[in-house]
Amino acid sequence: MGKNYLYYHDFFGDSEQHIHGVEKVLVEKRTPYQFVQLVRSPTFGKMLIIDGDIQSTECDEYIYHEAMVHPPLILLDSPRKVVILGGGEGATLREVLRHRSVLKVFMVDIDAEEIEISKKYLSEWHQGSFDNPKATILNMEARKFIETQLSSQSVDVIISDLTEPFEGGSSNRLFTKEFFETVYDRLTEYGVFAVQASLLRITDFSMHGAIRNTLLTIFPIVRSYLTYIPSFDTTWGFVIASKKKDPINLGRQEIDELIASRVSGALRFYEGDTHIAMFSLPKDIKEALKKTTEIITDAHPILLKRKEDR
Amino acid sequence: MGKNYLYYHDFFGDSEQHIHGVEKVLVEKRTPYQFVQLVRSPTFGKMLIIDGDIQSTECDEYIYHEAMVHPPLILLDSPRKVVILGGGEGATLREVLRHRSVLKVFMVDIDAEEIEISKKYLSEWHQGSFDNPKATILNMEARKFIETQLSSQSVDVIISDLTEPFEGGSSNRLFTKEFFETVYDRLTEYGVFAVQASLLRITDFSMHGAIRNTLLTIFPIVRSYLTYIPSFDTTWGFVIASKKKDPINLGRQEIDELIASRVSGALRFYEGDTHIAMFSLPKDIKEALKKTTEIITDAHPILLKRKEDR
Amino acid sequence: MGKNYLYYHDFFGDSEQHIHGVEKVLVEKRTPYQFVQLVRSPTFGKMLIIDGDIQSTECDEYIYHEAMVHPPLILLDSPRKVVILGGGEGATLREVLRHRSVLKVFMVDIDAEEIEISKKYLSEWHQGSFDNPKATILNMEARKFIETQLSSQSVDVIISDLTEPFEGGSSNRLFTKEFFETVYDRLTEYGVFAVQASLLRITDFSMHGAIRNTLLTIFPIVRSYLTYIPSFDTTWGFVIASKKKDPINLGRQEIDELIASRVSGALRFYEGDTHIAMFSLPKDIKEALKKTTEIITDAHPILLKRKEDR
Amino acid sequence: MGKNYLYYHDFFGDSEQHIHGVEKVLVEKRTPYQFVQLVRSPTFGKMLIIDGDIQSTECDEYIYHEAMVHPPLILLDSPRKVVILGGGEGATLREVLRHRSVLKVFMVDIDAEEIEISKKYLSEWHQGSFDNPKATILNMEARKFIETQLSSQSVDVIISDLTEPFEGGSSNRLFTKEFFETVYDRLTEYGVFAVQASLLRITDFSMHGAIRNTLLTIFPIVRSYLTYIPSFDTTWGFVIASKKKDPINLGRQEIDELIASRVSGALRFYEGDTHIAMFSLPKDIKEALKKTTEIITDAHPILLKRKEDR
Repeated sequence: MGKNYLYYHDFFGDSEQHIHGVEKVLVEKRTPYQFVQLVRSPTFGKMLIIDGDIQSTECDEYIYHEAMVHPPLILLDSPRKVVILGGGEGATLREVLRHRSVLKVFMVDIDAEEIEISKKYLSEWHQGSFDNPKATILNMEARKFIETQLSSQSVDVIISDLTEPFEGGSSNRLFTKEFFETVYDRLTEYGVFAVQASLLRITDFSMHGAIRNTLLTIFPIVRSYLTYIPSFDTTWGFVIASKKKDPINLGRQEIDELIASRVSGALRFYEGDTHIAMFSLPKDIKEALKKTTEIITDAHPILLKRKEDR
Repeated sequence: MGKNYLYYHDFFGDSEQHIHGVEKVLVEKRTPYQFVQLVRSPTFGKMLIIDGDIQSTECDEYIYHEAMVHPPLILLDSPRKVVILGGGEGATLREVLRHRSVLKVFMVDIDAEEIEISKKYLSEWHQGSFDNPKATILNMEARKFIETQLSSQSVDVIISDLTEPFEGGSSNRLFTKEFFETVYDRLTEYGVFAVQASLLRITDFSMHGAIRNTLLTIFPIVRSYLTYIPSFDTTWGFVIASKKKDPINLGRQEIDELIASRVSGALRFYEGDTHIAMFSLPKDIKEALKKTTEIITDAHPILLKRKEDR
Repeated sequence: MGKNYLYYHDFFGDSEQHIHGVEKVLVEKRTPYQFVQLVRSPTFGKMLIIDGDIQSTECDEYIYHEAMVHPPLILLDSPRKVVILGGGEGATLREVLRHRSVLKVFMVDIDAEEIEISKKYLSEWHQGSFDNPKATILNMEARKFIETQLSSQSVDVIISDLTEPFEGGSSNRLFTKEFFETVYDRLTEYGVFAVQASLLRITDFSMHGAIRNTLLTIFPIVRSYLTYIPSFDTTWGFVIASKKKDPINLGRQEIDELIASRVSGALRFYEGDTHIAMFSLPKDIKEALKKTTEIITDAHPILLKRKEDR
Repeated sequence: MGKNYLYYHDFFGDSEQHIHGVEKVLVEKRTPYQFVQLVRSPTFGKMLIIDGDIQSTECDEYIYHEAMVHPPLILLDSPRKVVILGGGEGATLREVLRHRSVLKVFMVDIDAEEIEISKKYLSEWHQGSFDNPKATILNMEARKFIETQLSSQSVDVIISDLTEPFEGGSSNRLFTKEFFETVYDRLTEYGVFAVQASLLRITDFSMHGAIRNTLLTIFPIVRSYLTYIPSFDTTWGFVIASKKKDPINLGRQEIDELIASRVSGALRFYEGDTHIAMFSLPKDIKEALKKTTEIITDAHPILLKRKEDR
């Protein structure tokens, strides 16, 4: 310590705190929906913080975004139409657009101001994806979009890249059984729903477990997967909920070949080995998830406390 | 924050610091070799800290110790004689003793006072293993033990569970090419050497890479593996260096069957899926390790700075 | 930072925190009344912390204790009987016993276990005072002692060296108008009451102001005074409430002569200049105190939140 | 803690750190001479930080600046010409301009960019003083100004409101015996030199002592004074070095009358009582300063380490 004077404090709970040096504060803006901070860290480069939580960093965002996008897209033979919920940095969009089969992507993010910040400051993330002719950016409530703008069985892949459900937050109705039922309806016969699903480690797994359980009431195939994100200092969980195809049936070599034939540009994180590692949960995590029984509904949502209220 | 008044600060580098609440300080003792602190954290239970670094915690030590021990032991058909270098908590010993084929374990730890602390305060770790008749505890320098007390091709598995090489530390001559050559010589025809090998994440991999590279100059089969340790807030690296058998050739079901038939008691972390996950390094880590070229020798050791000297 | 691994976090409010390195934790004990921690700091030596608040440190306790004791005692011609409420470290007692005129001191501290800790670990503070034949140590509730064990006009000086009134704390009924009225009654014709009265700086003065105001409803002469305590990182407030004599009428030289003739041993902090400085409040503090109007009563006490409830 | 995500860490030494919540970062600029940060704290309002050290805050800057300016100016019968060295915020200038006798003020600050920041963001500090016709702002090296632009015995008061001498810093040649001799020469017969002189508390007084000692080799009257600055969390030291008049000879009422007759607007901190308190050093500080013997010279400067080099 000592080389910087400002520090970002990432609160991990009442008695855990991670402190990251800040070389420079690039943006601090309170949009109608959230408090957006972009800072530069000596370790992680640009670091995007929303309402006090790290979203992604210049140094390791490729891990999060490749993990978010490629497992669901590689699972389908030829995904054409994709919907992204959230994903304001534009990097989820970037990864989706690498898949040559994709003809149309709708990115639905309620916060137009955050997207303006991304366009201006996060070019390392979006790399121009917002301007791709296959992409349509919509600033509207994601649930409303799914409920009113899509017809049944019309989308191949829906990716939920939203902030977690916080008390008073904008994502609260986007993790419930009722919403997931509508998502199920909008997906094509082989459709896949991928969800960023909170941190997943043996000391913190309850939100992940609840999202997973809720999906299990609707989809026939539900698989948790995880990977370590250095700037989060933790493994992070995702869930694939699928109508027909199971991601654990993909083999290492098969995945490497699919990537080679269908994805443009070189991936940095995801390949066959990575897929196998992410979907092979250790025994303790499997046991912990088995014991989780909560279901999230519109009437009984499960909400995280905002840090300022702790 | 606010429920505790004392905090343990884990320094991750000049501008990174992880702060853990401390409910109670149980032991603070400066032995002839190191500064040992045992504290109780609300999140992790008892937490063993040596020279400022977390060694293991009550809550998640099983992850580290199962990862350290079972991959090398399961790899051999019937390991009988095992040597542990370091491993003062007694939990590496505990896991080795679960393997029914093992007839003799030598645990060589230079610090008799640390072992006294373990016996007295870390019963959750050792669970009485120090008193197991198969175990011999030796308080001597590990290199001297390997060099002078063992004959050629006499040990099936050697496990290096040592603190990392710090400037002025006691482990500095235990990570060099010359030492590893002697280790190779002392192993039986199918012998395996497993090494705890520093943190391994895309932002910090140089010490791991150097240990791995050094082993690659001697052993025909060298495999890095990693797992996330919650109390370390990072993925941690290990290396298996093997004379004949390759851990990546073991299958999920095969491992589960081997555990069932050869290991007593129930494992909490390690099983077939865990093994597969640990040995399937993501693409970025593989690329990073490929680029690392350092070799550690007696004449040119690679030493980490102690925190107090930063 | 970096030389220590444990730190004491002193919370100054929601967004202010002072961090002190801890070399060694000497005592951690939850008595029936409070949580007592004694640690060693590289800057301040032994540091006594109760319920998360620094009480005093080896390095600068003389400032607090000389400020607490000598202004009220020097004010009287020949104080004979003194009562100390609280003062568990024994250093307030030590300073009182320096005054040769004093024949009898009652020290009333509810927490017998804290006094045992003091006797054992704080010899630099008490310097044997607990064994002085003029001293009587009583482990009872201070209010009960004042109400039931003293007769009217029987004590020359009462010193309130208590922890501040916290929610659920043991000092809550010791800062109220009703209690102060009894204190007034027990004091002799020229009697003086000195109170440690919370922090006093332009950003934090409300508790001090309330104590001061409450005393102003009873005593004809009430004077706030303050001094900087390095280990507290703030100026600290005290109040003298007096029946006849006014501390601001004492002159520099007069004080120095009184000390020379009446106090045994050499003082380190208090002398004429110090007295003048402590009682000369800067203009902003005077203005702030004028505006404070709260009165503390048994029915409407003013209580600070404990840190763990923030 | 928890309401803010960014914090300013004020390093008080290897094992002491003060953490202040930051609501908003207003300016971060590396000028040719220093790194300037202006942030907003919930406790102190705007907070100016240079090279990691708090310079002054919106909430309590009046304490520092009134302490810096009024003691030297009130000491003279009718100060006309004043020179300020440093003082980039413009608040020292503001306080000097309150004295109706003053006809001309030169403010010499090497850092033009810092003054631009002040003009734009620190209106609460300067309150338009930069535009006062009596004021001349010069961006040049202060020593050069004193040496080359002033004639002997031409200035009534010189105020040194500079950052402390840091290794590699811009103030290093402004605290030496040789420079102070030139200052002495430029002052009129009754001239006064006032110096901000580092922190002054029993645990940290060596830089103050060295500045004071160095002045004692030149001026017949040298007086340390101190006051507590809340945002600094410490008492701060100043020195008055005077050719004829001694500030400790001023009486309370005399000062109040001088202020009333000569100073425009209402002071918030300084008045007779404040003056008396500041110049009445406690016994321990007096003793400590007596033992300090260092002299600062051009050949043997005393320099503080910059925080980033610790």
